[in-house]
Amino acid sequence: MNLLDKKGFILDIDGVIGRGDKPIIEGVEGVRRLKEAGKKLVFVSNNSTRSRRILLDRLQNFGLDVDEGEILVATYATARYIAEEKKNAKVFTTGEIGLIEELKLADLEVVDYKNAEYLVVAQNRNLNYELITKALRLCLKKDVRYVATNPDRIFPGEDGPIPGTGMLIGALYWMTGRMPDVTVGKPSKIIMEQALSILGLKAEEVAVVGDQIDVDVLAGKNIGATTVLVLTGVTNSENLKSLIERFNLRPDFIFSSLLDLARE
Amino acid sequence: MNLLDKKGFILDIDGVIGRGDKPIIEGVEGVRRLKEAGKKLVFVSNNSTRSRRILLDRLQNFGLDVDEGEILVATYATARYIAEEKKNAKVFTTGEIGLIEELKLADLEVVDYKNAEYLVVAQNRNLNYELITKALRLCLKKDVRYVATNPDRIFPGEDGPIPGTGMLIGALYWMTGRMPDVTVGKPSKIIMEQALSILGLKAEEVAVVGDQIDVDVLAGKNIGATTVLVLTGVTNSENLKSLIERFNLRPDFIFSSLLDLARE
Repeated sequence: MNLLDKKGFILDIDGVIGRGDKPIIEGVEGVRRLKEAGKKLVFVSNNSTRSRRILLDRLQNFGLDVDEGEILVATYATARYIAEEKKNAKVFTTGEIGLIEELKLADLEVVDYKNAEYLVVAQNRNLNYELITKALRLCLKKDVRYVATNPDRIFPGEDGPIPGTGMLIGALYWMTGRMPDVTVGKPSKIIMEQALSILGLKAEEVAVVGDQIDVDVLAGKNIGATTVLVLTGVTNSENLKSLIERFNLRPDFIFSSLLDLARE
Repeated sequence: MNLLDKKGFILDIDGVIGRGDKPIIEGVEGVRRLKEAGKKLVFVSNNSTRSRRILLDRLQNFGLDVDEGEILVATYATARYIAEEKKNAKVFTTGEIGLIEELKLADLEVVDYKNAEYLVVAQNRNLNYELITKALRLCLKKDVRYVATNPDRIFPGEDGPIPGTGMLIGALYWMTGRMPDVTVGKPSKIIMEQALSILGLKAEEVAVVGDQIDVDVLAGKNIGATTVLVLTGVTNSENLKSLIERFNLRPDFIFSSLLDLARE
């Protein structure tokens, strides 16, 4: 199988094309070459604090010619999922302004917890006891639908690890025994099927590219797509073997970077 | 066995003698009668935000003649435990001023997270993302000893349930896979053995009285003491049977209130 026979690519951002605000040169060049080869691309990120607009800025700052329609981030994906399930739903979220922006753009009503029909749990770097208390009380209500933007437990912060959305999922589970009714971000099929719909392609026509075996490779396998691991992020040549064993998952292809894939 | 043959009583406060700031009349009267009968008492609470001083004020406001030495609260019990294990230890805590007061009174050094030898996890109604992040980073360090004041997951707040210390234990477990090395509060043997030491009595010489089967009755059984459940708090005549089945634990005695016990 030649990877370049694929019509589209679902590309992770962090650890593939950039690290936070900084570009990964081989990743950026890889995107350029795939575009030159006429491939359809969608950038899929589990970031639960940034809107599409902010990620678009970031990719454009990397020097990439990208359109907002090519970006699928967990904030937007969550808003889109809820809006499809219940138009104008009343939503309470633990999340940040970037998520609130996307919820409002999807015509959802962002409300305080007492009137909420949906609890949307997401990372918030301004999280406090009051927000956790409100989430707890909604979680105890069986008629409230509980949606998590993404399952990530820890993220690498600038000066060390920081809690992700998963921290709150764990806290709520510990207090109530309840897990999210739906988790939108990778490795969930929800965000991956949205990505296919944006590309207008079937799973067998695309390859899923990322740096994390338990997130990106698993997400690709969950929709039956070809999976590609690149070694510019969490997984590298040193830990590759042990991570494959740990997650018991083998990507279809492994490249040192996205550029190496595009060069094939 | 006649309960009033016991030389001492280990008494829970909340749900037995008071509900927050409000006294339970039968509980307060029960304490008076036990004192009149010459029984040794120690009041044991899993409260992780209040110092002994504050609980003493509360009991005195109920009209009780109580001494600070008769109060064993999870804040003080934790400070005492750590000070016995390592004199002048450097401690970082997620907890509130009441806990910090007790840590300092035990000559422990309360420090920021980077220099800490102990991580003390406790409820904090001013909890924020930064505190959780610091706790996460300490939890990832194997040479830091991780102590939780108490395991309670949810507390009844004034206008609904609020997160207890257990919320943070769950969040940290979810992120790191690590549980506390030591949990001090009930049903742990640690606080119960401190209670026996304060009374100067052996387990068979005391009865443990409380309103929660999975906390107080279990704590009593953990040290091999006689256990008494009263129905003025979490457990009441309606839910008694189902809670006994759920926790699969049977108290030695059940009374409608502490006064009924003292009347025996």
